[in-house]
Amino acid sequence: MPENPADRVGAFVPGPRAAIAGKAAGPLSGLSFAVKDLYDVAGWPTTYGNPDWGRTHPVAPSHAIAVAQLLDAGAALQGKTKTVELAYGLTGENVWHGTPTNPAAPDRFPGGSSCGSAAAVAAGLVDFAMGSDTGGSVRIPASYCGTFGIRPSWGAVSLTGACALGPSYDTAGWFAARAGILARVGAVLLPTVAPGLAGLGLGPLIKVDEAWVNATPATACALGAGLEAAEGLLGKALSLSLAPEGLPALYEHFRCAQAAEAWSTLGGWIEATNPEFGPGVKERFAAAKAMDPAKSAAGRAFRDQFRARMQALLAGGAVMIYPTSPVPAPKLGISLDAQNAVREMTMGVTAISGLAGLPEVTLPAGRVEGAPVGLSLVAGAGRDRALLALAERLAEALSLPV
Amino acid sequence: MPENPADRVGAFVPGPRAAIAGKAAGPLSGLSFAVKDLYDVAGWPTTYGNPDWGRTHPVAPSHAIAVAQLLDAGAALQGKTKTVELAYGLTGENVWHGTPTNPAAPDRFPGGSSCGSAAAVAAGLVDFAMGSDTGGSVRIPASYCGTFGIRPSWGAVSLTGACALGPSYDTAGWFAARAGILARVGAVLLPTVAPGLAGLGLGPLIKVDEAWVNATPATACALGAGLEAAEGLLGKALSLSLAPEGLPALYEHFRCAQAAEAWSTLGGWIEATNPEFGPGVKERFAAAKAMDPAKSAAGRAFRDQFRARMQALLAGGAVMIYPTSPVPAPKLGISLDAQNAVREMTMGVTAISGLAGLPEVTLPAGRVEGAPVGLSLVAGAGRDRALLALAERLAEALSLPV
Repeated sequence: MPENPADRVGAFVPGPRAAIAGKAAGPLSGLSFAVKDLYDVAGWPTTYGNPDWGRTHPVAPSHAIAVAQLLDAGAALQGKTKTVELAYGLTGENVWHGTPTNPAAPDRFPGGSSCGSAAAVAAGLVDFAMGSDTGGSVRIPASYCGTFGIRPSWGAVSLTGACALGPSYDTAGWFAARAGILARVGAVLLPTVAPGLAGLGLGPLIKVDEAWVNATPATACALGAGLEAAEGLLGKALSLSLAPEGLPALYEHFRCAQAAEAWSTLGGWIEATNPEFGPGVKERFAAAKAMDPAKSAAGRAFRDQFRARMQALLAGGAVMIYPTSPVPAPKLGISLDAQNAVREMTMGVTAISGLAGLPEVTLPAGRVEGAPVGLSLVAGAGRDRALLALAERLAEALSLPV
Repeated sequence: MPENPADRVGAFVPGPRAAIAGKAAGPLSGLSFAVKDLYDVAGWPTTYGNPDWGRTHPVAPSHAIAVAQLLDAGAALQGKTKTVELAYGLTGENVWHGTPTNPAAPDRFPGGSSCGSAAAVAAGLVDFAMGSDTGGSVRIPASYCGTFGIRPSWGAVSLTGACALGPSYDTAGWFAARAGILARVGAVLLPTVAPGLAGLGLGPLIKVDEAWVNATPATACALGAGLEAAEGLLGKALSLSLAPEGLPALYEHFRCAQAAEAWSTLGGWIEATNPEFGPGVKERFAAAKAMDPAKSAAGRAFRDQFRARMQALLAGGAVMIYPTSPVPAPKLGISLDAQNAVREMTMGVTAISGLAGLPEVTLPAGRVEGAPVGLSLVAGAGRDRALLALAERLAEALSLPV
């Protein structure tokens, strides 16, 4: 299926397209990249993972801003990577384009929705790849495929020219196999440090109790060395229970608020087009359409309150640390019920930075049964650059690729 | 012994002195106050709780700045209150002037070192009273005598014209029987809000795990309603373990660093004068003199690191909540070993704001076996006014005197 013969993991969307060279002598010169097929690339179709979307939308007239920034910085675009249809799913399946193979654990899901970007990076096909993260769509595939990944502060990186899912939560994130490259991309895409944050260090380290307890013991154990190494950099972690409501309540509020946004963003097109969807996607959008407005309003109110809470806690530089996903990637072929159970335990944790708009970097710091699990560092909004620098130092301490 | 016949609890230092009226039509007009006998009042002796100190120091030529501020604001000075000798002790005993009676629990210690100020307020002899707090000397007697009390941010209120014990930790605090009066005094003494903090609210609420576990179950239970009322104002509390080193380590660092300062501040006078001290005081200063410089240096280094940690955690407005003292006032006549045990479990908690220079307000929110125990609210440095306003709201919610 891959048109690119080197694409042994099926990371790229089908269809031959010529690579686009980056500008000479830029800060990313010599690096190759791919973009999730929800970013516009001038002259290429944007399918958003669904053939009907591609069919009903014109070929992109211009580059998405992030794509232009990267080309301008010298990186060479190799192609577009697969996404879950309309970015609405966490396993990484796509029945139209084929589900990418998880290069780090071929019998397991790659994770999504930015499945192709994670797989392309994990397989070494590109140096980095753009994804997007609304409720975990960079962090989860990074954790599952064993790459570095960042969900930046909400609003920090331009999404102009990218398809939207839930604009209050959507972020433009990226993957890299090396911490240094993750940071170099950030230096291009991220705004310079917000006023008032310049020169401020990060710390103390906060171990988020709920997220460590929510992880399986095997995952927590696999990430123990990562936690200790982080403590070596920032001092012994303080333990915090940040959500007395419980992680399931975080997920529920996120789900209700975000579903209403997903429908208000995409419902018009869905009703007008009546697109064919793969299994599960149709049901998720039907549920989004049917979302009780009182529940989504309660979700938005909770989000605002939770965002203020987290921003207050992290205003002085504190960094939270916890397992990116509570388990490694589920095995291909597990039941839908089992998939849903994993999704629920996962999204209680991903909802933390999702609701609060916080930057989160995940490092491939552990393995469970041979499959990768990521370790997340999460800071106050606007501290993305400092967080990337910290992730580099932590990667070095853990002898991960820098 | 009391010269003032109304002073049925022995709160004031002996010796008849005329009251000093406050300026007319000030913000504190109509309020009476007393000051711990380590603040200078022009024309009066300052004994610092010890006859030899009084004998070897001239009568004060002018008012301490805080005293002048209060008189200028219209409050009327009624006299000077007893202090533990050189403010170096937590029980409130003074063999020279007599130990004040705890008006709320006459069979128990009043707490110190600002014992007379707490007793005067608790007995209703004055509307408010100035104390000083280095390691707990306002917070503990307030908790024991059932008054409101504040240890302000380090450096926020002038100590010019007051005797020093450990200048890096000394603060000018005060007691009041009503939350509103506590705040009105703050409006006079505290600087206007620091730049950058104006208009910022307080929250989230953080329940400090160690301090709640360190308290006896009876104390924690007695303060449960206070915690719930605070949650009613700021939302359900997050649980935090802020000292992975353990509270005993906090106390130990505080003790070592502060003892070295106490000796460097007062050792010269002690060596030159060879004063008579009551039981325990001599031993404490002997230990201060003998303090291993490496231990005090380690204590200072820890303080700096802990201060940065706490300031980072509280920079965005978070408010910590915990029992001011782990137990109510110990009964008079308990053994020295039992007193030391109480001191150690108490100072691990008081060291939190002591080391970090944070403002702490204690409210008389509970009773154990009929004796008061205080509930503390602690915020980031510089947020004293907001903290006093929060304490007023909490007092109202708890039907405490406002």
